Amino acid sequence: MRAAIFHKPHDITPGDRPDAALKEPTDAVVRVLMACVCGTDLWFYRGDSPYEPGPIGHEFVGVIEEVGADVKTLTKGDFVISPFAFSDGDCPNCRNGITTACVNGGFYPMNGDGGQGEAVRVPLADSTLVTVPGSGHSEETLRSLVTLSDVFPTGHHAAVCAQVEPGQTVAVVGDGGVGLCGVLAARRLGAERIIALSGHADRQRLAIELGATDIVAERGEEAVEQVKALTGGVGVDATLECVGTAQAMQTAIGIARSGSMVGFVGVPHWAELPAWEMWSRTVGVRGGGTPVRVYLPELLDEVLSERLNPGRVLDYETDLEGIAGAYAAMDQRRAIKALVRVGRP
Amino acid sequence: MRAAIFHKPHDITPGDRPDAALKEPTDAVVRVLMACVCGTDLWFYRGDSPYEPGPIGHEFVGVIEEVGADVKTLTKGDFVISPFAFSDGDCPNCRNGITTACVNGGFYPMNGDGGQGEAVRVPLADSTLVTVPGSGHSEETLRSLVTLSDVFPTGHHAAVCAQVEPGQTVAVVGDGGVGLCGVLAARRLGAERIIALSGHADRQRLAIELGATDIVAERGEEAVEQVKALTGGVGVDATLECVGTAQAMQTAIGIARSGSMVGFVGVPHWAELPAWEMWSRTVGVRGGGTPVRVYLPELLDEVLSERLNPGRVLDYETDLEGIAGAYAAMDQRRAIKALVRVGRP
Repeated sequence: MRAAIFHKPHDITPGDRPDAALKEPTDAVVRVLMACVCGTDLWFYRGDSPYEPGPIGHEFVGVIEEVGADVKTLTKGDFVISPFAFSDGDCPNCRNGITTACVNGGFYPMNGDGGQGEAVRVPLADSTLVTVPGSGHSEETLRSLVTLSDVFPTGHHAAVCAQVEPGQTVAVVGDGGVGLCGVLAARRLGAERIIALSGHADRQRLAIELGATDIVAERGEEAVEQVKALTGGVGVDATLECVGTAQAMQTAIGIARSGSMVGFVGVPHWAELPAWEMWSRTVGVRGGGTPVRVYLPELLDEVLSERLNPGRVLDYETDLEGIAGAYAAMDQRRAIKALVRVGRP
Repeated sequence: MRAAIFHKPHDITPGDRPDAALKEPTDAVVRVLMACVCGTDLWFYRGDSPYEPGPIGHEFVGVIEEVGADVKTLTKGDFVISPFAFSDGDCPNCRNGITTACVNGGFYPMNGDGGQGEAVRVPLADSTLVTVPGSGHSEETLRSLVTLSDVFPTGHHAAVCAQVEPGQTVAVVGDGGVGLCGVLAARRLGAERIIALSGHADRQRLAIELGATDIVAERGEEAVEQVKALTGGVGVDATLECVGTAQAMQTAIGIARSGSMVGFVGVPHWAELPAWEMWSRTVGVRGGGTPVRVYLPELLDEVLSERLNPGRVLDYETDLEGIAGAYAAMDQRRAIKALVRVGRP
């Protein structure tokens, strides 16, 4: 089958891979319909994080092609969304709501296939995949469904970790796909005022369309000053850190008001949090890999009823053969987030 | 007046100071009845944190001696508890519940007097002091009342920041006064199982009397192993870090289960939190200086109705003239927490 293959940094191309196939009786094979390129993939693409040559990608929706003998809830032909992590749904961490820490689970492509390919062997299929009811979904709905695989729930997780509540003033650090989804998630949770930190005119526009009420274009210390000025010197009630760099986290902690929480969902590419500043200002920090599987049912309902439209962050489109261009566009920030059309519905 | 005076590390003695006196119309002068030595004072005593020579102490109860012209709710003769921080109750941070970040407030002895002295000028008296209703309180009640000035609310704050909920398994790192109060606070909030990390037989006994169900005497990596063994390899639902050292925080994060929070209330004597470990296991951290003023009304009610008895952590007693012995006993861990009887009721 065809799939994106990571060779080395700045070198991800379509190539031939062995067909995805059942291995365990709890597996399903999903024929991929749509996939996305994630900000996390860019860390590998840029050589900022190590990556073994081989398949890549972890965000996809598709159709069940085959199920193992022990799979009970899925049938060939079902349209499914896969969270970026697979999980058994039954271990203590899953029962505590952290499916990304499942003791029997894992992350694509530990299973052997990446999400950016024609098909994927999905381990623990019953407890990992979520079936999309209905048929004949609009193009707009399909685009939103694929964002439920990672990017929108991750923005939502940042908002949940930051403890966003109705009526609050919220700030979102980062204008990538996750940051923009964070704006939408904060609005969905009832934030009254949403300050988006973004220095790019087109992303500022999209942030405002998604619910931002204020834009801060500055970075670093100047951004902290600006947000303080917008909030009477106090800082914001909840902060979403959606970048994963030391500077972004420093800004996030700097703009958080005393007593508030910073949610951080970008894989941290830095070592340490400033304990004294957090302590002395009573600013808490919580984050981690998003338990997408836990959030999916609720978010899926809202997408299907057209109350939620996170697909708007997808502003680049290609097929598998164009995968190199998708990475380059995101790397150069010409694209916010790339949709890869792999198969046909 | 007589007061404890910090000269240099390991040298705190009783001495003569100018009488506490009104300075601002919002001040009150409180004649101190009982004071305590805090674990924080020990950082100065040991020379681990810098301290200007002069008055010391920030935990006290006493009787109003004089009030400024603008003081409305307090009268000479009122029996009051002072939180360790003074606050106006009206700034944005106070309204958000973080009175320790009051933009007009501060900490003793920024006001000129320490709590370990015959009298204290209390700034912002109306919004800082809490009146104790009734009279003729028992010795046991009085001892508990003075712990509401800092140590018990601080254990409570650790439990609040750790998001302790009924039925949970909770761990408390640290067997000082704050840690033991943390055990009591976790029990009060409904924790079903409380693992106290303590290597001292007498403190283990007190921890069990206060509500601990399990003791872990090991430290560092071995403590983490032990707590994991007690919790099916998963870790605990909520963790109270009540020491303030790097090792204690490392242990706390290590024993926290995925998805849980660590509350940290010891002034952090270390620089940084391990971001990657927190992120990869979805362990959040929140803490800071305890907003005692916010918690006081609720806790005071329970002490007065004898449902709450945190005074039990006071296991050493002296008067002002014996202050040097109180510090030495706590420094050498012969005492958990020293009560200083300053005046007479």
